[in-house]
Amino acid sequence: MNKFVSRLAASTLLLIFVAFLAGCAVSNRTVQDTPKKRWGTAALMVVVERESGSVLVFDSTKHEFLGRITGLGNLKHATMVFSRDGSYAYVFQRDGWMSKLDLLSLELVKRVKAGDDSIGGAITQDGKYIAVGNYKPGGITIVDAETMEIVKVIPAIRDLGDGKTMESRVVGVADAPDNLLLFALMDADGIWIVDAGKPDFPVIKKHWDIGAEGDTGAMPYDAFLGSDGRYYVVGLLNANYMAMIDTWNLEAGVQKILTEQGAEPGKVPLWKVPHLEGWTVMGGLAVVPALKENRVIVYDAKSWELVKYIDTLGTALFNVGSPDGKKVWVDIVGPGGDSIQVIDIKTLSVVKTIKVGEGAIHPQFTPKGEAVYVSVMDEGKVVVYNSATYEKIKEFPAQRPSGIFCTSRAHQFGL
Amino acid sequence: MNKFVSRLAASTLLLIFVAFLAGCAVSNRTVQDTPKKRWGTAALMVVVERESGSVLVFDSTKHEFLGRITGLGNLKHATMVFSRDGSYAYVFQRDGWMSKLDLLSLELVKRVKAGDDSIGGAITQDGKYIAVGNYKPGGITIVDAETMEIVKVIPAIRDLGDGKTMESRVVGVADAPDNLLLFALMDADGIWIVDAGKPDFPVIKKHWDIGAEGDTGAMPYDAFLGSDGRYYVVGLLNANYMAMIDTWNLEAGVQKILTEQGAEPGKVPLWKVPHLEGWTVMGGLAVVPALKENRVIVYDAKSWELVKYIDTLGTALFNVGSPDGKKVWVDIVGPGGDSIQVIDIKTLSVVKTIKVGEGAIHPQFTPKGEAVYVSVMDEGKVVVYNSATYEKIKEFPAQRPSGIFCTSRAHQFGL
Repeated sequence: MNKFVSRLAASTLLLIFVAFLAGCAVSNRTVQDTPKKRWGTAALMVVVERESGSVLVFDSTKHEFLGRITGLGNLKHATMVFSRDGSYAYVFQRDGWMSKLDLLSLELVKRVKAGDDSIGGAITQDGKYIAVGNYKPGGITIVDAETMEIVKVIPAIRDLGDGKTMESRVVGVADAPDNLLLFALMDADGIWIVDAGKPDFPVIKKHWDIGAEGDTGAMPYDAFLGSDGRYYVVGLLNANYMAMIDTWNLEAGVQKILTEQGAEPGKVPLWKVPHLEGWTVMGGLAVVPALKENRVIVYDAKSWELVKYIDTLGTALFNVGSPDGKKVWVDIVGPGGDSIQVIDIKTLSVVKTIKVGEGAIHPQFTPKGEAVYVSVMDEGKVVVYNSATYEKIKEFPAQRPSGIFCTSRAHQFGL
Repeated sequence: MNKFVSRLAASTLLLIFVAFLAGCAVSNRTVQDTPKKRWGTAALMVVVERESGSVLVFDSTKHEFLGRITGLGNLKHATMVFSRDGSYAYVFQRDGWMSKLDLLSLELVKRVKAGDDSIGGAITQDGKYIAVGNYKPGGITIVDAETMEIVKVIPAIRDLGDGKTMESRVVGVADAPDNLLLFALMDADGIWIVDAGKPDFPVIKKHWDIGAEGDTGAMPYDAFLGSDGRYYVVGLLNANYMAMIDTWNLEAGVQKILTEQGAEPGKVPLWKVPHLEGWTVMGGLAVVPALKENRVIVYDAKSWELVKYIDTLGTALFNVGSPDGKKVWVDIVGPGGDSIQVIDIKTLSVVKTIKVGEGAIHPQFTPKGEAVYVSVMDEGKVVVYNSATYEKIKEFPAQRPSGIFCTSRAHQFGL
């Protein structure tokens, strides 16, 4: 029996060892059989699904769906900026929440309540901070991009004298060279400049009465930084011109551009569209959607003289320039809203009308422009076009998709 | 004994099961304890270590060393291009080898012998192909970017009539909008254009005698595509001008620019430097290093009229424009080679001289320009500067570092 027991013990030990190895192997196989999918982050497309509070992430080099990130809350009019390495998206929501998304693991990292009523924001040139523009409480909230902690709140308050002050809604937050942040004060008729590279984020300049005529404030309603990163242009509801700051020459102050352009007495000019993001400035031209008119206006971006009117199928919303500067893709709202029109910059004429589908909006080019992603909101899909042949390359199901943002925006000022 | 055996068997089974679980656990712990480091790929800096046949990879958002990729062979005068998602680098070597590097796993993926004597290359707009320019055999080799298989060889051969032909070295391969590839034929005095979007890569245009004077060929020696992606400029050894093709208007053919500019009779003009990559074209200006002269020349990039000479500490090699278009960083070779000089574009004057170290070359900006990486070849290090304050942020050891390439180049034509 001793022999039997010792043989049994030996076999048992062997079996235990084999079982241990098997455990290791099974576990390793699990790891090896499901290798974590990896991707480069320089050319990801992030699509906002408005009602469902989620975003879709696509690899735009292979036109491949990578996944959906959910739980972001209300994404109506949501916009986003990206960390410079393309690995994080910062999503601005109208309800004041700002979400940090990990585009490598496709997870919601953290959310922060940056205000009660917010209207977009910017990431500083050095990538360290996110500035959120708030309607309520009026001002900007600066958040650490790494930790998502609020590091500074700058209230937008104008001193009216006699101890009276006025709190103002903030619009058009943009990042500019030299680590500057610019924004406009809607109610208080101002433009402020913050140096985000200095400790405690000083407001280095407060421009007031940028468009005041009589008792009426100019009412800045939006702003944008041209794609050259130099000129900050502010739209004004109560003025027949726009305000511009040359960020290379801050001493020059606020200049008036597009004076009276296209305006009739007592009527606001055509170019007063809600989204100034819809402007494209490239190759010395500004291509501007005209509100309530079935045309696009082309200005010389230096003199701001009118160059040409280009008739479109309907009311243009977003004019999006191609990376090679040769074309502008224009989406249409209202009648004709199922189409995208393509304007050739050399001839300044419509060269193609593409029937994309109902609610076709937000064309977004891949970084080198060989393809374009378009949301087809009312048909629940995202479609991808070959920008040279206008052929459809692919389409993906999506839940009422709207804004599309490519991570290549990480490297552009004002986006 | 039956009871004893059955109890023993039960214990054994239990032990085996526990051992199996332990195996699983140990294996899992191994995986969890060493999580694979991950990074975004949109802002990586890749530094060539010439003699050791390796590259260093840095995360330029955190200024962090990620790792070294070795075994690349001779990297003298090596250059590289990137896949649009920033996850792969394609390194061109003078000995005809082209290597594909994985910037996520930091591994050499594959090498292909594209020629016997090569001189750089380009990645097509659609990201599908890599074109390698060869001195020997004269021509270009087109390689599938995914598989690294050679898909087409286009010999650069000129028909001289009477059954005679001439094989030519190729220089200045560049990718342009509309999926075009352009390159110059050094010995055969030509510029060819390939449509890389069409099956079998047809040569759609062969320009000949672009600078022939009498019996002498113009001898194109290098070329570049301006940062706007539009103008292809070719340097000619035997002509007192340069050749230019407007890629938006191929019908216009080859134009002559910089005619006689800065040239004395019988002497080649100043701007004949070996690397035309050393040119910066931005904001309507071309900032050009002047060979053998201690100055930089500024031309109007439209009329090609001389704007200004700017004296430098020595002979400039690479003029590198900042992403915001406000500054140009210039490295110096020969006397003064320990310094980098900074030119302000607004005033067209040197605003700063930085003593970086012996053999300071190849300044490269981070994608939004807040920092600059510089190789200090003779002191074995890579240093990082704050571009606003000119303070040194960090330095890293490196083995005779030379060229520095940021993955943000993936989105620019001609780079």
